[in-house]
Amino acid sequence: MTDILISEVGPRDGLQSIDRIMPLEAKKRWIAAEAAAGVSEIEVGSFVPPALLPQMADTAELVEFANTIEGLTVVTLVPNAKGMQRAADAGVQSVSIPFSMSETHSVKNVRKDHPAMLEEIAAAAAIAKEHDIHFVVGLATAFGCTIEGAVDPANVARLAEKAVAAGAQEIGLSDTTGYADPAQVRRLVKQVKSAVGDEMVTTLHLHNTRGLGLANVVAGLEEGITTFDSSLGGLGGCPFAPGASGNIVTEDLVLMLNSMGLNTGIDLEKLLQVRPILEEALPGEPLYGFTPDAGPMLDYDQRVAA
Amino acid sequence: MTDILISEVGPRDGLQSIDRIMPLEAKKRWIAAEAAAGVSEIEVGSFVPPALLPQMADTAELVEFANTIEGLTVVTLVPNAKGMQRAADAGVQSVSIPFSMSETHSVKNVRKDHPAMLEEIAAAAAIAKEHDIHFVVGLATAFGCTIEGAVDPANVARLAEKAVAAGAQEIGLSDTTGYADPAQVRRLVKQVKSAVGDEMVTTLHLHNTRGLGLANVVAGLEEGITTFDSSLGGLGGCPFAPGASGNIVTEDLVLMLNSMGLNTGIDLEKLLQVRPILEEALPGEPLYGFTPDAGPMLDYDQRVAA
Repeated sequence: MTDILISEVGPRDGLQSIDRIMPLEAKKRWIAAEAAAGVSEIEVGSFVPPALLPQMADTAELVEFANTIEGLTVVTLVPNAKGMQRAADAGVQSVSIPFSMSETHSVKNVRKDHPAMLEEIAAAAAIAKEHDIHFVVGLATAFGCTIEGAVDPANVARLAEKAVAAGAQEIGLSDTTGYADPAQVRRLVKQVKSAVGDEMVTTLHLHNTRGLGLANVVAGLEEGITTFDSSLGGLGGCPFAPGASGNIVTEDLVLMLNSMGLNTGIDLEKLLQVRPILEEALPGEPLYGFTPDAGPMLDYDQRVAA
Repeated sequence: MTDILISEVGPRDGLQSIDRIMPLEAKKRWIAAEAAAGVSEIEVGSFVPPALLPQMADTAELVEFANTIEGLTVVTLVPNAKGMQRAADAGVQSVSIPFSMSETHSVKNVRKDHPAMLEEIAAAAAIAKEHDIHFVVGLATAFGCTIEGAVDPANVARLAEKAVAAGAQEIGLSDTTGYADPAQVRRLVKQVKSAVGDEMVTTLHLHNTRGLGLANVVAGLEEGITTFDSSLGGLGGCPFAPGASGNIVTEDLVLMLNSMGLNTGIDLEKLLQVRPILEEALPGEPLYGFTPDAGPMLDYDQRVAA
């Protein structure tokens, strides 16, 4: 049994933020290698219009491939009900739809205000239910917005309730912009849990824009968060939120959680061997993280959960 | 009143780890600019033999200069009683002596085993007392050693007791090697506090070798730690601990603590203007941190303590 689930989002959030297109075969190697290292959930792509994000055009083929890997939960992102139908057709098990807490960001990003997004969520939820797909609403810009600045936590809690009413089976909290600080993480997780129920809020999606990513993980752990999104090599960010860069780094996250004696089910040594796949397929692309250079501590094996 | 004291150690820990010697005038500009940004404690140098660390040869002059800055606590490191006498002669207010918890590291670093170091600490403490100097014993490699690997926390607690018996007025916990993880920070702070008293353990010295630095700060905050050492731009590390690099970054630490609503007394905007002094004096030297690139969040001013 794993204590903490690490959900690798690099093939989606990482790749959608860079201009180059990773070849399908490299994506498959990446996904297979991470799964072999013990990563049990991977967001493989996004059902957005290929004209908008050509990097994600092969998402259906990746879903088909990833579904053949035993024990792997295959997640995709969808922006709307139309994307949800494509996800259902492709045979996805779990889908996440972003719902931006900053209405300005929502309108700018997907041209929908909050009421329109809630209608879209309800329509997507109906399709998810019909196909028995796990349906997550990710509250984007929940910790602040690069356009609006502060985002009212009481409004986040209210919108979380509305998303649940519209059919969300799970609420994720996303720091799309790298605005979160550890005190705020604790406050917001508490507030949203108290609005929609503890069991509905288990996932944090954090960025490392200001270097606070793993500090925010520690704050999340204190509040009972059990799933963290991260990206191998910290690849990526949000192309629609100016100034927002880089998910937290899977390698450093695994080192930290494993060293703390928490069971992630992931073999760090095997995980560190996945990075060359990215380096080869995307030469010169900036990759982040400290553990790939420093390696684990000498006494790492003594720290990890038996 | 500040909630959290940030002790800038870059002029000592940062500069001693690089080969180039920063000119005295640049060091003075750096110290003065940080003090003007609200940094109220700075470790300006180390009274080690200049032949060993020529980067620190001007420490007495820096102490004289820094003592003229109002409200600034001037700290130096000393390796032994001889260094303590030089510190006293220079008019230092506060001195820290490293006591390596890994006996192998201690012998390799200062050619003294634990009993010999405890004698040295007692001799240094006597000089400190005579001159009314605040005397801190920093437990180096407290979280693990690049030579020995795991360091027994029960032994750390015992050695902390012996250091107090030898005259330490304060016990610092130092992650010299970047080995600490957040769960270990909580455990070790608890254990050493319970051995020597809560009020004796207020300081953590953390490195960011594996990217866990700020995560370890959050763990320290949870255990009541109120002083954190850090280095502007993450400059430096420990030249005697192979593979150990870079203190936690002052800029990111200040952003995090201030955003959390904790009062550090430091003006982030002013602090960010200090970095060019390093860039100019040490061209090409690697500097770290995310906040200098990303800048504070749009709603930063709303987050900081009134």
